[in-house]
Amino acid sequence: MAKRFTEKHEIPYYECDVTGRLTLPMVLNVLLKTSEAQSDSLNRGVDYLSEMGLGWVITQHELEIKALPRVGEVVNVSTQAATYNKYFCYRDFWIHSESGEEYLHLQTTFIMMNLESRKLTAVPDEVITPFECEKSLKIKRAEKIEFPEFNESREYSVRYTDIDSNQHVNNTKYLEWMIDGLDYDFLTQHQAKQVTMNFDKEIYYGDKALAQTALVQADDVVSYHKIFRGEDQSSTAKIVWG
Amino acid sequence: MAKRFTEKHEIPYYECDVTGRLTLPMVLNVLLKTSEAQSDSLNRGVDYLSEMGLGWVITQHELEIKALPRVGEVVNVSTQAATYNKYFCYRDFWIHSESGEEYLHLQTTFIMMNLESRKLTAVPDEVITPFECEKSLKIKRAEKIEFPEFNESREYSVRYTDIDSNQHVNNTKYLEWMIDGLDYDFLTQHQAKQVTMNFDKEIYYGDKALAQTALVQADDVVSYHKIFRGEDQSSTAKIVWG
Repeated sequence: MAKRFTEKHEIPYYECDVTGRLTLPMVLNVLLKTSEAQSDSLNRGVDYLSEMGLGWVITQHELEIKALPRVGEVVNVSTQAATYNKYFCYRDFWIHSESGEEYLHLQTTFIMMNLESRKLTAVPDEVITPFECEKSLKIKRAEKIEFPEFNESREYSVRYTDIDSNQHVNNTKYLEWMIDGLDYDFLTQHQAKQVTMNFDKEIYYGDKALAQTALVQADDVVSYHKIFRGEDQSSTAKIVWG
Repeated sequence: MAKRFTEKHEIPYYECDVTGRLTLPMVLNVLLKTSEAQSDSLNRGVDYLSEMGLGWVITQHELEIKALPRVGEVVNVSTQAATYNKYFCYRDFWIHSESGEEYLHLQTTFIMMNLESRKLTAVPDEVITPFECEKSLKIKRAEKIEFPEFNESREYSVRYTDIDSNQHVNNTKYLEWMIDGLDYDFLTQHQAKQVTMNFDKEIYYGDKALAQTALVQADDVVSYHKIFRGEDQSSTAKIVWG
C-alpha cells in the first residue's frame, strides 16, 4: 500500500471567492502542494528531478466535490500514489474537514517530461520506488466528453504570473480562464460538484489562449470548456454544477 | 503603543514566480491576511463591520523590500496599527525570516467606506479603540509621483476571481496587471525594492481596465503604472527595481 501524506492547510481569504468558499483553481493548488511536499519528504522533489532533466506534467484531473472549505477553516489535505505503469502515474488527493468529513477527492494522471526535448519519457524506477505504490499495466481511459456547440469565447494573454517552474502555463490557470466564461450570478448561485479536465498541449509565456464556453441545462447544469493555443486544442473540461 | 500581531506563514509554490520568490501581489495578500486575523482576534472583523454597514478600503501602499522570501520558507508576518485620525488609519506590516531578519516593510493607509453609499465615512471609535493605537491629527501626504510618457498599454476584463468581499477588484489585482506590463526577461532579472501605490477609484465586475506602463532607466530602474476605468484614473504606482 502506497504511503499516504497529510498536511494541514488554513484557508486564507485570498484563496476564496466572494461567497467565502475556496475557489476551484485554489483547490488544485492546495492539493498539488501536498504532492510536492510528499516528493520533497522522500527526496524526490523538483531539485532531484531537475538534475535528471525531468519534470512531472499533469494530463488529467477528475475531481468530485461534496463541499468546499470556507475562509479561516483548517483542513487536512492528503495525497497518495495510486498505481503506475511505464508512462502514467495515477495519484489520489483528498481534502477533509478537521472532524474527518470528506470534502473532495481528486484523481490525477501524471506523465514525465524530458525538460529539454519537452517530450514524454518513461518513468524511471528510482523516481517512483520511494512512493511504494503498485505497478499495474492497467491504463486508465479518460472520460470521453461529448461537447455541445460553443456560444461564448474569450481571449487571454498569458501573464508572467501564469507561468510555473516548468516554464509553461500552470494547469490551475486553465481552470481560472474556464470559470471566467461563466458569469457572476451563475458562479455565486452554483457550486461545482464534478470537474473532468484534460491537458493536451502546453501554452507558453507570450502566447494567446482562446477559451470557449457552453452552458447546458438538462438533468444537471453542465458547463463545457475548451482552450486553444492557435489551432491546437490545449485543454478541455466538463463541470457539473449543483 | 498599539498591539502587534504576528502569524507564521509557509510560502507555497503557488504564491511564487518562476524564480521561486514570493510574487508582489502575494506579498500584499499575505500581509493583509494578518490585519484581518488581528481584527478577528479583537472581534472587529468583517462580520462586525458588515453589521455596521462598513468596510475598510485601502488608499495607499508604501512597500520597502530588502529581500523576498522563497518557496517553502516559513516567515513571520506582523502588523500593528500606527496612528489614526477622523478619516485615515495608518498601519504597518512586516515580513521577517524565522531568524529575525527583516525582509520587507509595508505602510498602508485605510479609509472606512459605507457599504451602501460606497462613500467615505468617519472611523467610529468602537471600531478603532481595541487596536490601542494613537490618535493623531497628522495626515500623511502621499508621495507625488511624476509620471513619464507611457509607451505600453493593455486592456484587462475583470474576472470573477478578481473581485473580493467588498464586491470590487481586490487591490492585489491592480498590482498583477501593473507587473504584467513588464516582460519576462525583465521580471526574472530584476527585483522590486520599493513600491508606492495609490488607489483612487474602484473597479467592478464586468468593467474593463486599461493599464499603462513606462520603464525608465536613470540612476535606478523605475517602472511607472496607471490603471484606468474608462476616463477615471483608478490606481497608480511607481516601482523601483534592483
